[in-house]
Amino acid sequence: MADINSPVEIGVTTGPIRGSRKIHVGARTGSGITVAMREIELEGGEEPVRVYDTSGPYTDTNVAIDINAGLAAKRDAWIKARGDVEEYDAREVKPEDNGQLGPDRSGGVPQFPNVVKRPLRAKTGHNVSQMHYARKGIITPEMEYVAERENLGREVPEGYVQDGQSWGASIPDVITPEFVREEVARGRAIIPNNINHPESEPMAIGRNFLVKINANIGNSAVASDVATEVDKMVWATRWGADTIMDLSTGRNIHDTREWIIRNSAVPVGTVPIYQALEKVGGVAEDLTWEVFRDTLIEQAEQGVDYFTIHAGVRLAYVPMAAKRVTGIVSRGGSIMAKWCLAHHKESFLYEHFDDITEIMKAYDIAYSLGDGLRPGSIADANDEAQFSELYTLGELTHRAWEQDVQVMIEGPGHVPMHKIKENMEKQLEVCGEAPFYTLGPLVTDIAPGYDHITSGIGAAQIGWYGTAMLCYVTPKEHLGLPDRDDVKVGVITYKLAAHAADLAKGHPSAQVRDDALSKARFEFRWRDQFNLSLDPETAEQYHDQTLPAEGAKTAHFCSMCGPKFCSMQISQEVRDFAAKQNESPEGFLASEKLGADTAEASRQAAIKGMEEMSGKYKDMGQKLYLPEGETE
Amino acid sequence: MADINSPVEIGVTTGPIRGSRKIHVGARTGSGITVAMREIELEGGEEPVRVYDTSGPYTDTNVAIDINAGLAAKRDAWIKARGDVEEYDAREVKPEDNGQLGPDRSGGVPQFPNVVKRPLRAKTGHNVSQMHYARKGIITPEMEYVAERENLGREVPEGYVQDGQSWGASIPDVITPEFVREEVARGRAIIPNNINHPESEPMAIGRNFLVKINANIGNSAVASDVATEVDKMVWATRWGADTIMDLSTGRNIHDTREWIIRNSAVPVGTVPIYQALEKVGGVAEDLTWEVFRDTLIEQAEQGVDYFTIHAGVRLAYVPMAAKRVTGIVSRGGSIMAKWCLAHHKESFLYEHFDDITEIMKAYDIAYSLGDGLRPGSIADANDEAQFSELYTLGELTHRAWEQDVQVMIEGPGHVPMHKIKENMEKQLEVCGEAPFYTLGPLVTDIAPGYDHITSGIGAAQIGWYGTAMLCYVTPKEHLGLPDRDDVKVGVITYKLAAHAADLAKGHPSAQVRDDALSKARFEFRWRDQFNLSLDPETAEQYHDQTLPAEGAKTAHFCSMCGPKFCSMQISQEVRDFAAKQNESPEGFLASEKLGADTAEASRQAAIKGMEEMSGKYKDMGQKLYLPEGETE
Repeated sequence: MADINSPVEIGVTTGPIRGSRKIHVGARTGSGITVAMREIELEGGEEPVRVYDTSGPYTDTNVAIDINAGLAAKRDAWIKARGDVEEYDAREVKPEDNGQLGPDRSGGVPQFPNVVKRPLRAKTGHNVSQMHYARKGIITPEMEYVAERENLGREVPEGYVQDGQSWGASIPDVITPEFVREEVARGRAIIPNNINHPESEPMAIGRNFLVKINANIGNSAVASDVATEVDKMVWATRWGADTIMDLSTGRNIHDTREWIIRNSAVPVGTVPIYQALEKVGGVAEDLTWEVFRDTLIEQAEQGVDYFTIHAGVRLAYVPMAAKRVTGIVSRGGSIMAKWCLAHHKESFLYEHFDDITEIMKAYDIAYSLGDGLRPGSIADANDEAQFSELYTLGELTHRAWEQDVQVMIEGPGHVPMHKIKENMEKQLEVCGEAPFYTLGPLVTDIAPGYDHITSGIGAAQIGWYGTAMLCYVTPKEHLGLPDRDDVKVGVITYKLAAHAADLAKGHPSAQVRDDALSKARFEFRWRDQFNLSLDPETAEQYHDQTLPAEGAKTAHFCSMCGPKFCSMQISQEVRDFAAKQNESPEGFLASEKLGADTAEASRQAAIKGMEEMSGKYKDMGQKLYLPEGETE
Repeated sequence: MADINSPVEIGVTTGPIRGSRKIHVGARTGSGITVAMREIELEGGEEPVRVYDTSGPYTDTNVAIDINAGLAAKRDAWIKARGDVEEYDAREVKPEDNGQLGPDRSGGVPQFPNVVKRPLRAKTGHNVSQMHYARKGIITPEMEYVAERENLGREVPEGYVQDGQSWGASIPDVITPEFVREEVARGRAIIPNNINHPESEPMAIGRNFLVKINANIGNSAVASDVATEVDKMVWATRWGADTIMDLSTGRNIHDTREWIIRNSAVPVGTVPIYQALEKVGGVAEDLTWEVFRDTLIEQAEQGVDYFTIHAGVRLAYVPMAAKRVTGIVSRGGSIMAKWCLAHHKESFLYEHFDDITEIMKAYDIAYSLGDGLRPGSIADANDEAQFSELYTLGELTHRAWEQDVQVMIEGPGHVPMHKIKENMEKQLEVCGEAPFYTLGPLVTDIAPGYDHITSGIGAAQIGWYGTAMLCYVTPKEHLGLPDRDDVKVGVITYKLAAHAADLAKGHPSAQVRDDALSKARFEFRWRDQFNLSLDPETAEQYHDQTLPAEGAKTAHFCSMCGPKFCSMQISQEVRDFAAKQNESPEGFLASEKLGADTAEASRQAAIKGMEEMSGKYKDMGQKLYLPEGETE
């Protein structure tokens, strides 16, 4: 058991992801801001491919990592330069913050050695939210960073035409800092970055930006400890988590969170009601606004970037959930439901919403308005309880916006495919295009053990329809706590779902990586295929299980067809042949034209055949139909 | 090395899937036909749940399995009772059938001990296809079997209302034998069952039936052997494969296929051009109609239920593929492309299409018209080459239907989400609603190692839109040959995708299993949750990793919240509370009404807020916008 103030041995994974290196791209505004990206080097004289990078300094060979010191406070100068913040003495950490209700911290998580004693907050009368600056017409360094990051250091190729179906999104060919400002001003995007989390790299969540993913980590009353959670955070962001949520419950919540935030290069979200509940001994009806408020301040000072607040679970909606197959499955939602019923009073979160907003704007914390009544099964999808709450979340969105506070909205849950779109449409309508942040949704209930996939299917779809951030689901969902491997599988699954959504929406920089990988595949550049993939290690390992020899990585065949026959190789021959047969472009076009004519003739023949068949079927239908007794 | 005619030691997995047993449900027509299903028993007095079962006699404790003898010929009597078939001396097996081009079979696969020497074919002038019977108004036992199987022994509950969005499908509340006949008659469904594969259990592929999945197995020139492939076949059907395709290449093709078919309770498909290519030493341009025709007869006599025929790869379309990022990725497609270019002649498959159809109808083999020009990358999706071929497949569909031969159409491939629907719509239009049978599609190229998921996302969607059968993709896709574990992951992934599609289409019997599982989850019946899931073993294993004790399986909490706080438990309290508060239905309704009013007020507030905000934004827009130089 570690002595409370001694440094902790925490092993995290560092070093570049194979085949790539960290680069720092200067913003083209010339402001001197540099944006971290990852560049994948290719063989055969191919241009390297730049990809979005969430891994922070951990993959930068030029940065020394010290978990006991935390990351460098990169945004500190930007925050202070605005002249609207002040330092003050932090709230004293109390025993109940770590769930121990007494002075004895033995057996607990050691305190982070480098705690900030004097956090920042807005000076009296000021509002430090990015939305507030945006509405004043100010382009912050954070917005500039985001713009360059979303472009992936890419120029628009000449003659570029966007290909996609965006369902009413407004994705420009190139993201400018001004575009970011506009999106934040109108509430269509958020940049979650608490002024007390200056270690984070700015990122945007909004339907006109790349689709983001969140990974949940956190201990629980049953298992895990702080080293595991910090390691999971670094691991999740290494593979692509854009934000992480610390959903810890039980003891050590305060200290665990401190370790995570100080070492996190991505925004960190929490559900403050979890900690508030621990402070009142786990008895929901003992919760008070005062305990909750104190918890918000505690977490605000530590640097939490967004808070899930279940203020939409109103007293009147609770009985609606009683008829459901799976009742209330959100922890926050059920805590509030129990409180409302026990006191037969309106939710204190709803009643004190404007007071919460006052805190949010003093630290620039974004709302993540929680869907406490989300459906927990296919049977409960899109029901009255769910949509009643959504309407209230819409009302609260506008109330937060009145004070220039950033908002996103949490969404379901379990929803069959044909009911997903209604969720997105209603959310866009009643929440004024505030970013949607959905958990899955899972499109069936029958595959525990594979719910990263049942939910990945729903996530890709709702991401395409307009969801701005997807909350990952791991294979352990409904069954147990995810370990390191589960976290990786969850992140990669959601990364591919988000990317599929970007492609379908027509995000200009999305297809570059698909094309580079497919070209490498066609040219048998195996190493490039591995390195361009979301998980190079797994790709190579799977390849090597069938063809382990090093030579196979440069071989012009693969294990599916074998060396004797290979469709890719034949394709290359077809290409060479076609090129030879048609040395003049005219000859080639003539051949193409013939193809189009043949195809059109086929199409006409097919349609004619269908009409004939249909007519014949109708004509004969009456006769064909024989009552069952007469069939034989 | 086994002596050629000795029995082979092949280990396959037998015995019931945990928590369930095989049942045989009598058709309600009273014909005496019984249909194999699986019944999952539940705790706490809950009704058992019947599920569709593809596992054949291997999970039946009352059947002795002998791989060297093959399965019982259940359909034999039905086939012979129609009086339209004759036995004849089988074609002599030639050395080249096993790819050895000489009399020496040493090192090869041993011959199956129980080979049928006198196969069946239609008597001269007869047509034994299910489509032919259907069009004559005959309801075959196969159709009756299918009807009962699709209903899962279910009655329509009183007041049942279908919930789903079927995109123009016509799914009835209950499947009758007459409905099956009608669907087969109009070509909207097929029942693939070669009269020489009487071991199979009849099943239907069509947009108005449950969505089916196929698993590909087969050796290749590089790895695998017959024992592995038979084991994979049994394993894949155990977990839900509705058909399997033997895609073997290289040596031993004939004998491997014999072992598989004789032991398969599901229809078996092949791509005959693979074997034909082996017979001409792997040189595509040496292929002839005669060699191909001989291969069709060889496989027809063995009992192959459907043939993939790439007759749509016409000479004129080949140059269209030359411009692609990944050219031609279909093996069959590239073989035919090479042949066409080498001879500069129209494809012999296209030219001899009606001759092929003559063979199909003599054995009741269904066409699976191959998409030899399917896109192999996001960049190539929905291009001219692909759709030109599709139009030709539509033309060929109608030509096959003129001779009452069953047809399905193969589809892509790699397609971004926003281009999937166009594939389905075009296919329905030009192929007259012949069943679509798609590979994925993969919705992004960047996740090798996870292509069961990238493709599962596309598969669920295209299944919802109307695809009748989904060809699985394993995690090894593009990288290596799937092993047993990969086969299972591929099957389960596709099973959940197909089920998600059934739910979204509104198939009447689909949601029963979701509801039963969700109810078990809500009531903490852990064992029922495991047993109702698609993969009970994995579900239990994941649960036990966090809470291994046997007691945890009856505990009223799970590892996510722990014993102290649990949202499901609170939900139950909410339910009890609500019930107590509203003992009269009127009281409950009043409370509900209040909820609806509150929700409506919120909705109005939200919309009003949005309008105000939007107006405000527009009003202030001009002033807010400051040129970049003036921002600070």
